[in-house]
Amino acid sequence: MSTPTDPQERYDLITRHLQEVLGGETIKSILVEGKSPKCYWGSAPTGRPHIGYFVPLTKIADFLRAGVEVTILLADVHAFLDNLKAPLELVKHRTKYYEFVLRAVFESLSIPVSKLLFVQGSSYQLTQDYNMDNYKLCAMVTEHDAKKAGAEVVKQVESPLLSGLLYPGLQALDEQYLGVDFQFGGVDQRKIFTFAELYLPRLGYRKRAHLMNAMVPGLQGAKMSSSDPNSKIDFLDPPNVIRAKIKKAFCEEGNVTENGLLAFAKTVLIPISELRIERLATEKAGLGQSDGKPSFAGPGAPDGTVFTIPRDEKFGGPLHFTTYADLEAAFAAKEIHPGDLKKAVGDAIVGLLEPIQKAYQENEEWQKVTDLAYPPEVKQVKPKKEKVYHPPPPGKGKNVKTDDPPEANGTTKPAAD
Amino acid sequence: MSTPTDPQERYDLITRHLQEVLGGETIKSILVEGKSPKCYWGSAPTGRPHIGYFVPLTKIADFLRAGVEVTILLADVHAFLDNLKAPLELVKHRTKYYEFVLRAVFESLSIPVSKLLFVQGSSYQLTQDYNMDNYKLCAMVTEHDAKKAGAEVVKQVESPLLSGLLYPGLQALDEQYLGVDFQFGGVDQRKIFTFAELYLPRLGYRKRAHLMNAMVPGLQGAKMSSSDPNSKIDFLDPPNVIRAKIKKAFCEEGNVTENGLLAFAKTVLIPISELRIERLATEKAGLGQSDGKPSFAGPGAPDGTVFTIPRDEKFGGPLHFTTYADLEAAFAAKEIHPGDLKKAVGDAIVGLLEPIQKAYQENEEWQKVTDLAYPPEVKQVKPKKEKVYHPPPPGKGKNVKTDDPPEANGTTKPAAD
Repeated sequence: MSTPTDPQERYDLITRHLQEVLGGETIKSILVEGKSPKCYWGSAPTGRPHIGYFVPLTKIADFLRAGVEVTILLADVHAFLDNLKAPLELVKHRTKYYEFVLRAVFESLSIPVSKLLFVQGSSYQLTQDYNMDNYKLCAMVTEHDAKKAGAEVVKQVESPLLSGLLYPGLQALDEQYLGVDFQFGGVDQRKIFTFAELYLPRLGYRKRAHLMNAMVPGLQGAKMSSSDPNSKIDFLDPPNVIRAKIKKAFCEEGNVTENGLLAFAKTVLIPISELRIERLATEKAGLGQSDGKPSFAGPGAPDGTVFTIPRDEKFGGPLHFTTYADLEAAFAAKEIHPGDLKKAVGDAIVGLLEPIQKAYQENEEWQKVTDLAYPPEVKQVKPKKEKVYHPPPPGKGKNVKTDDPPEANGTTKPAAD
Repeated sequence: MSTPTDPQERYDLITRHLQEVLGGETIKSILVEGKSPKCYWGSAPTGRPHIGYFVPLTKIADFLRAGVEVTILLADVHAFLDNLKAPLELVKHRTKYYEFVLRAVFESLSIPVSKLLFVQGSSYQLTQDYNMDNYKLCAMVTEHDAKKAGAEVVKQVESPLLSGLLYPGLQALDEQYLGVDFQFGGVDQRKIFTFAELYLPRLGYRKRAHLMNAMVPGLQGAKMSSSDPNSKIDFLDPPNVIRAKIKKAFCEEGNVTENGLLAFAKTVLIPISELRIERLATEKAGLGQSDGKPSFAGPGAPDGTVFTIPRDEKFGGPLHFTTYADLEAAFAAKEIHPGDLKKAVGDAIVGLLEPIQKAYQENEEWQKVTDLAYPPEVKQVKPKKEKVYHPPPPGKGKNVKTDDPPEANGTTKPAAD
């Protein structure tokens, strides 16, 4: 896949589908100089990643295609702190597992990962300089401001812990210590981001830009409990499990707002189809040939199709869509039966995960790490609510419409295109 | 001066004059094993120490005499944070200055300092282990508990800073990282101390004992403002300046409660006289001979005198006291004129500081450090209220009766004797 070279084209690719951009001018000026902006997105390897992670990763695919140097922060220190019951050893293995999954996702999408860097928080968050800066921040940030900054992402409980007050400052420092030009996250991070813009300069550091995905409802809409193991699809779930979970998803005829399946199509499946169409167009001009990567256009779909609802001929045959808007309109008009949407999305997810699961089967080290990271005893306990560090842990903001940690989070307000 | 060897005798010396002891049994058991308990007292070198520091130091003299290994924590990181305007460089010099003063005080009192250790906070408070423990604490301590713990010592302002919430936890960690058996401080530290007793075991560390001095009013009683340079007597003030400051002190005839001069006599001068009497008794039995160290018994005073009010023969001649209680009773009964008390205390302080100032005159390095630590520009600005780290910065608790950082702080509820 080729990287655009025109600064405006690169900027448009970096910022498309986003809900909000703060400090876009600084990114533009880096692009105009012909340089590559650097960005970071963070995730705390607390539990086990699920397919909601596709939402930010799909956006990160845009960054990589636009030549951005992306750092993925695996916030292991915070994962450990968020989850004091899991010993550091377990977090170490989970950090590895996250890295395997995330790398496999990018590879499955044919995204160039040469500019992708994985960094563990513990590699710099316990150093003398970082901690001195943390103390300095604590000596200038009021409780009130720290609380306000974290209000959307820090779990709001009756007896809040001190750690919740530290996170906004630490997340600001990460921008400096990772040496990035912008940070990416869900729009639920907005207050944390503006906090960073205010305080980094007070420490004598550069103010960074902030790019934000919209929040989207989980795959299960607003109806299912997080204690229901069906509410999350694991990257390694076999096809029958995936289809069973999708079958139980909340999907009401004509209801396009509380519909996690449509949201997933909008924020993950269709952008991935678009990336593929762009890639194929480039390849036709250059190397030629497809690559057997997942496609969400059914057999016989016309050019430009980004999503197909397969349907028996006796019910009118398959429906092909070239935009998400058309798909949504058809569902709103009840032209698509929920069962057909479920089948289409289920098939799409099975196809999406196929290359990732193949990579897993071929990688003994990944398999070993998985066993260590999620030992049977842990697997059997009631799944815990995932704790948030920052950027999303997809879909944890107060603004998310479910009372359940949703599966998918981020992206797409098409106005930005 | 000899060190008592009987465990009970040592324990009594360690705990005499204190207002409260938590965990005394653990100290006793160390003494019964014939070992030396370790303790720490902390001070943040923010401003410039004044003679109020004699209060905790007089008590520390008891510890040293009882064979306790005393660590004095010079909390430089916190001094810097408390006082963001002072660059680290300045704090470094002030830390040195504090050490010179404190050492000179102990030497002037003939206290054995072989078991005295000075440690700078920065030597361990920025390490990986310490910070990981700090993060762990932050993940288990609620805002509410941290605030409650710091209520007496952290400056209560409208927009409290995060640093104030961290101090209780850091002070708890100091006990572990300094490897002590007990911490010493003013009774204003009580909530911080009980916080440490609760949380160290939750990190898997040993609960420490806590020894507390009573709070005492400042030399100026309750009437003078901290912005008045006369309200503090510096260790290096020349005799005429000391006498002028004492002359302006609040000292009302018959009023023994709001009387910083009596408080200073009770908590510093008389305990020092007692130490001297004990020392001389030992020396008579052994080496013999006095040492020219300050005495607060006037010429011709009978044996056992701990304080003398010099007075002209025409007003009845000098008054000699063998206990503080007698001195207080005489002042309450208006048998001592405030002017005479002022003269006696003024002379005593001049005598107390004489060997310290002599040491200063003979020590070029100390003189150089003083110039660097307190450059003329800083000297000329309006004296700032001293910020607190912990143990006292003598007399900063909410419980102190003045609305002014008092000069003297700590000690003496004679009931403990």
